[in-house]
Amino acid sequence: MEIITLIDILGTISFAISGALTAMHKRMDAFGILIIALVTSIGGGTLRDVLIGKTPVTWMQDQVFPTVIFITAVFAVLLRSKLKYVRRSLFLFDTIGIGLYTITGVQVSLAFGLDPLICVILGTVSACFGGVLRDILCNEIPIIFHKEIYATACIAGAVIYLLLSKSEVPQSIAMILSGTTIIGIRILAVVFKWQLPRLYKREVSE
Amino acid sequence: MEIITLIDILGTISFAISGALTAMHKRMDAFGILIIALVTSIGGGTLRDVLIGKTPVTWMQDQVFPTVIFITAVFAVLLRSKLKYVRRSLFLFDTIGIGLYTITGVQVSLAFGLDPLICVILGTVSACFGGVLRDILCNEIPIIFHKEIYATACIAGAVIYLLLSKSEVPQSIAMILSGTTIIGIRILAVVFKWQLPRLYKREVSE
Amino acid sequence: MEIITLIDILGTISFAISGALTAMHKRMDAFGILIIALVTSIGGGTLRDVLIGKTPVTWMQDQVFPTVIFITAVFAVLLRSKLKYVRRSLFLFDTIGIGLYTITGVQVSLAFGLDPLICVILGTVSACFGGVLRDILCNEIPIIFHKEIYATACIAGAVIYLLLSKSEVPQSIAMILSGTTIIGIRILAVVFKWQLPRLYKREVSE
Repeated sequence: MEIITLIDILGTISFAISGALTAMHKRMDAFGILIIALVTSIGGGTLRDVLIGKTPVTWMQDQVFPTVIFITAVFAVLLRSKLKYVRRSLFLFDTIGIGLYTITGVQVSLAFGLDPLICVILGTVSACFGGVLRDILCNEIPIIFHKEIYATACIAGAVIYLLLSKSEVPQSIAMILSGTTIIGIRILAVVFKWQLPRLYKREVSE
Repeated sequence: MEIITLIDILGTISFAISGALTAMHKRMDAFGILIIALVTSIGGGTLRDVLIGKTPVTWMQDQVFPTVIFITAVFAVLLRSKLKYVRRSLFLFDTIGIGLYTITGVQVSLAFGLDPLICVILGTVSACFGGVLRDILCNEIPIIFHKEIYATACIAGAVIYLLLSKSEVPQSIAMILSGTTIIGIRILAVVFKWQLPRLYKREVSE
Repeated sequence: MEIITLIDILGTISFAISGALTAMHKRMDAFGILIIALVTSIGGGTLRDVLIGKTPVTWMQDQVFPTVIFITAVFAVLLRSKLKYVRRSLFLFDTIGIGLYTITGVQVSLAFGLDPLICVILGTVSACFGGVLRDILCNEIPIIFHKEIYATACIAGAVIYLLLSKSEVPQSIAMILSGTTIIGIRILAVVFKWQLPRLYKREVSE
C-alpha cells in the first residue's frame, strides 16, 4: 500500500510538472500555471469519477493531492531553467504514473460493476485525459491524438489486467504484470520512436 | 421498440463516421480517430446524463454502442476514400439520429421531473453537443455556433414534443410528429441553404 | 435574501452579456450567442455541482436563470452597438457577481463537508470557470490564465470567508467582508492595472 501511495504521489508530481511546463510555454501567469498543473494531474481521474457518478470526485476527499500539486507548480516555476536536467527522471515517474492510473481506473470501474470494454475505456481515460484537458485548455489539439504511443500502452495494460483478474492469478501479480506492460510499451515506444501507423499518404476525402 | 433501436444504431454510426472523418481531416492517429468517433456519438447524451446525475452514464450500461462505434471507426478508416459516395445516406441517418436523440433527451429530462425549458435545453444538448465536443477536441469553434440550421431544428422539435405530450395525443404520435419536424426542418435547411439571420453588417463594438 | 437574489440576477445578466459579446466578436449565429451566454453565466456553478455530485445541477431547479439569460442575450444582440455606454455598469455587476459566486461556491462546498483547500478551489471554480468555458468554446486560451487579477481576488475572498466562518463572526458579516475583499481587489486591479508577476524574461526551457 505504501509503495502505491508513493508511486501515486510521484506520478502526480510528474503530471503537475508536465502541466506547469506546458502552461509556462504558453506564457500563462501564476494562476494559469496552477490550474493547468492541477488539471493535468487530476483531470483523468476526475472525468472517470464524474462519468460513473463517484462524487465528490476522488481528489476532493483528501487535501494531500492538491497540496502536492500546488507545491510542485511553485517549484516548477522557480526551477524552470533547471528542469531539463531531470527530464529523464520525470519521464520515468510519468510512465510509472500512467501505469498506476490505468490500473486504478480499471479497478474503480470494476467496483462499479461495469462491463469489460467500459473498464478498458475508463482505465485509459483515467491515465490519458489529464493530458487531453491540459491541451484543450492550452488551445492545442491533444498531443495523444496525433503523436506518441501512449494511450495504446494503457489499453494493452488494461486488457491484460482484466484478463488476469478474471483468472486465478493473485491481485498483486495481476497489477505488477499489467503495470509492467504499460511501462514497457511506453519506454520501448520512446526509445525506438514507435508511432501508430500513418494513414495519410493521400489527402482524406472529406 | 425495435425500430427505435435500429434508428439509434444507424444514428450512432452516422455520428461516429462524422467524427472519424473530422479526425482524419485533422490527420490524427488511430487512437485519436477512435476517441473523436466515440465522443461525437455519445458526447451529447453523456453531457446530459452528467448534468442531471444519471450515472454511470447511459452508454456505459451496454457494450453494444462503444462496440458499434469502434467497428464504425475502423471501417471509416479503411473505406475513407469511398465515403463520399455514401454521403447522402449518412446525412439521412444523421438527421434521423438527431431527431431521435432530441426526443430521447426530452423524455429522460421529463422523467427526472425537470421544468419544460430545461427539458428543451437538454434535448438540444443531447442531439448537438457530441458535435460541439468533437469540434473542441479538434481545436475548432463548434460548427453549430456559426453555421447551419441544426440546433434550431432540435429546439423546434423538442417544443412540439413537450406540447403534444401534455395533450391527449398518444406518445407514439407525439414522437413521430416532433421527430418529423426536426428531420423536415433540417432537410429543408440543407436543400434551401437556410441560415440563421446574419447579424454582422457592421463590426460589433466590443 | 432578496438582496442576494437581486445580486445573483444582476451578476447573471453581466456574465450573459459578456458571453454574448464574445460570441458576437467571433461572428457566431443566434444559437451560438445563446449557448455562449448560457455557458458563461452558469458554467462555473455547473462544473462545481458536477464535481461534488449536486445533481440535477442548480440552474436546472429553476427556470428563472435560463430565462433571464436568454432575454439578456436577445437584448445584447439588439442593443449591441449601445453596449459600450454601459460597460462601466457591466463591470460593476460582474465584479459583484464573482464576489457572490465565490462565496456561494464555498458555502455549497462546506455543506458537502469538504476540506478548506477544496472549498477555496471550488469557490474559485464557481466564479471563474464560466469564463474559462466561454473561452474554450470560442477557441481561445482562457483569458484568466494569462491576463488580469481575477481568480486571485476570488481565492483571497474565499480564504477570508473560510477563516471568518470558523470564528465567532456572524455569517452575514463574514459574507460582506469577504465579498468586499473580492470586489475591492478586482476594482483596484483594474484601476491600477495590476497583473500577476511576469515570469518570462528569458525563454522557458521546455
